[in-house]
Amino acid sequence: MTEHTSRHYEQDLLVLKEKILLLGGKVEEMIASAMKSLLERRPDLARRVIDSDRAVDSAELEIDHLCLSLLALRQPAASDLRFIATALKIVTDLERIGDLAVNIAERSIELSEEPPLKPYIDIPRMASAASGMVGKALDAFVKRDPNLAREVLQADQAVDDLNVQLFRELLTYMIEEPKNVSRALRITFIAKYLERVADHGTNIAQMVIFMCEGRDVRHPGAQEGAGGGR
Amino acid sequence: MTEHTSRHYEQDLLVLKEKILLLGGKVEEMIASAMKSLLERRPDLARRVIDSDRAVDSAELEIDHLCLSLLALRQPAASDLRFIATALKIVTDLERIGDLAVNIAERSIELSEEPPLKPYIDIPRMASAASGMVGKALDAFVKRDPNLAREVLQADQAVDDLNVQLFRELLTYMIEEPKNVSRALRITFIAKYLERVADHGTNIAQMVIFMCEGRDVRHPGAQEGAGGGR
Repeated sequence: MTEHTSRHYEQDLLVLKEKILLLGGKVEEMIASAMKSLLERRPDLARRVIDSDRAVDSAELEIDHLCLSLLALRQPAASDLRFIATALKIVTDLERIGDLAVNIAERSIELSEEPPLKPYIDIPRMASAASGMVGKALDAFVKRDPNLAREVLQADQAVDDLNVQLFRELLTYMIEEPKNVSRALRITFIAKYLERVADHGTNIAQMVIFMCEGRDVRHPGAQEGAGGGR
Repeated sequence: MTEHTSRHYEQDLLVLKEKILLLGGKVEEMIASAMKSLLERRPDLARRVIDSDRAVDSAELEIDHLCLSLLALRQPAASDLRFIATALKIVTDLERIGDLAVNIAERSIELSEEPPLKPYIDIPRMASAASGMVGKALDAFVKRDPNLAREVLQADQAVDDLNVQLFRELLTYMIEEPKNVSRALRITFIAKYLERVADHGTNIAQMVIFMCEGRDVRHPGAQEGAGGGR
């Protein structure tokens, strides 16, 4: 590789990192706007989230293209190969987080058409925790920092706990009063979407640790079997 | 590339296809067993599904390794490069379908501890439709057949329709009788899991069409923006 092409290659990797961070920022913003539309009962914001899904889809395609051309033209060495393969997987997670933001926005529009059921306390907490996990996981990815990624894994339990707590509370509402059922269900769904956002954050973090260390943190215990076959 | 290494390479690609089909078969089987455990109220079967998740995780790692070594050692040409990049993404979808089978199994154990709420009619239909979509999408992948993949996209609406229909029915149960709420909710969750299995099938099919045609069926309309930037 000449110095010239090698500089190009470094440049392409930088562009890849930037594009992934940008897309990550975009979907985090969508989650935040969807939450704002829920809390402030603003369907206009929700509709903007739904519209912005197209930009996410375009960004996903662009990143896929970039990864493929890096793989085809630059024939990257082992560690960069892992980096690019991980980017290919991560971008799918980000696109699906965008879809979940759209789902939250849709439920928020429906909820804005009925009187409020209860003040939201746990849901905004879940949203910021889940969104923070995604941001930190992406940060760990571009820095190739497995320790930062590990912090994400630790945060997942808190989101799950909030979800369980909220679920119990909403169940009580539904059992006490039939006319609460449909609203409480919608809120339950939003909590589930946020739990899935957190799961995507966890998935990304696990892939980053695997990328950095080649160690299987995605599936503790599964390693023994892996690679043994063929 | 000598004839010798080229034969090796073809062989590796075949192994990759086989491993993906095997993993696909495995997760389809898990969905089927989880459904059986639900319909026949057999928590023993559900526990077997939960246990088999480890084998899925091992298979995922193996396929990832194989893809990376193909990329590193064989420097595949454009169309194979796309094939391998798609394999990397598909395997993540398959692993998550395995997780959803585990979720169904968990809810089925909980439901087996309470009296039956209602006979299951739509849920088994959803399960076989969703599972069939995944199987066909994988078939389209290994055959590199975009038309077969398109058939998968058409099937998704049927699953969504069943889900909406079931959701309305369960809502009625919940509103009519508070003591139904917790069971009806669990069934609602199972329907949601199956909807997500179908979504994974759709995602795989879209990736296959994109792989074969380079055309953006994942996100109609997003193409104009894609690749324009950098």
